[in-house]
Amino acid sequence: MTTDAGAGVDADGPARAMVDLLGVLAYGELSAFDRLAEDARAAPTLAGRAQLSTMAAAEIGHFRLIEDHLARTGVGVADAMQPFVALWDSYHVSTAPRSWLESLVKAYLGDGLGADFYREIAGWVDPGTGELVRQVLADTGHSAFAEREVRAACEVQPQQRDRLALWGRRLLGEAVTQAQRVVAERDELAEFIVRGSGDAGGVANLIKKVQTNHGKRMSRLGLS
Amino acid sequence: MTTDAGAGVDADGPARAMVDLLGVLAYGELSAFDRLAEDARAAPTLAGRAQLSTMAAAEIGHFRLIEDHLARTGVGVADAMQPFVALWDSYHVSTAPRSWLESLVKAYLGDGLGADFYREIAGWVDPGTGELVRQVLADTGHSAFAEREVRAACEVQPQQRDRLALWGRRLLGEAVTQAQRVVAERDELAEFIVRGSGDAGGVANLIKKVQTNHGKRMSRLGLS
Repeated sequence: MTTDAGAGVDADGPARAMVDLLGVLAYGELSAFDRLAEDARAAPTLAGRAQLSTMAAAEIGHFRLIEDHLARTGVGVADAMQPFVALWDSYHVSTAPRSWLESLVKAYLGDGLGADFYREIAGWVDPGTGELVRQVLADTGHSAFAEREVRAACEVQPQQRDRLALWGRRLLGEAVTQAQRVVAERDELAEFIVRGSGDAGGVANLIKKVQTNHGKRMSRLGLS
Repeated sequence: MTTDAGAGVDADGPARAMVDLLGVLAYGELSAFDRLAEDARAAPTLAGRAQLSTMAAAEIGHFRLIEDHLARTGVGVADAMQPFVALWDSYHVSTAPRSWLESLVKAYLGDGLGADFYREIAGWVDPGTGELVRQVLADTGHSAFAEREVRAACEVQPQQRDRLALWGRRLLGEAVTQAQRVVAERDELAEFIVRGSGDAGGVANLIKKVQTNHGKRMSRLGLS
């Protein structure tokens, strides 16, 4: 899984942090594509399959924006992603949906979590990268159908609500665990977050914001 | 797998043929997405995985163009696709790649075959549908990387060439078989092709053109 190292991969400090940040996001998109495509296959209707497949395809749109952006700075996206493959894969293994509704909840919450994160960092990065982040954000919101489907299913089978609420909480817990691992392994990235948020408690604050928004999303799914 | 039937699904004659045509293309795109996404997972490099995933995502772009077009005429894409699910699925089962190189050859030849077909019908359909077909065609050509990878692999391992050449011929054979089944099952579609091509031998001529182009693509892969 190696390719020629791009010029920026061996950079230190802020440049290294930016490559890490884009690398972790790029593999986040690529692995989300893969999992959504797999989950789409288990859809109970062709319409649901098409909708989840559309979400998967949108991840590739974001992936390509990141790839192009990295390429302009002389960094190969494969090199930038490599350090984060195992962590993301481990997240997806630990949160493999066992039903269509679990897939929808994961897709919806994951989409929102990604958007939170992009929104948060948009102001911390250089203008060029900020523009990239805004382009990605403008293309989110493909998951409204999940809201409708999950709410409708819980109305028909109220016992699903508790089970899916538990699932939603577990997804957040796993995401936070994996995010903490990424930050613990990548010093430059931790420094970047502290500097970006202008706060020594930057990582904790970021997680807190994400938790608040996660709660709102759970409400919108009818799972709070 | 049922949804509310759109107004146009029960139409007869030319309208029925157009819904069938778009339905067969829509499920072709959706099932190609699914198979390419699955094949991408088996890529030997992150770069290859990203490239095949990008091809998969492009199929969803085409799918959505067809979906929107059908929606404007009051037809749900799920209803239009339904009659063709079993045939396409059977094509993919009978042509499941057993290696990364087989995946690349299938992706490349399938992409070209699709483009041939879209190009051929562009002039047979109403102006609105013709515009849709041109939009889809403008977005093909994501498979050039497959050409490079297959050629490079055959240079290193010349014994791959014969095996992949056989595979390429088998893919065309299976595609022709499935296309003939579709036409045999859908009278309106057969009439549409005869009328469109302005020739009673329309289907045979269409297949002949596809075969010629397939041969050219095999050459470009270094497999002729």
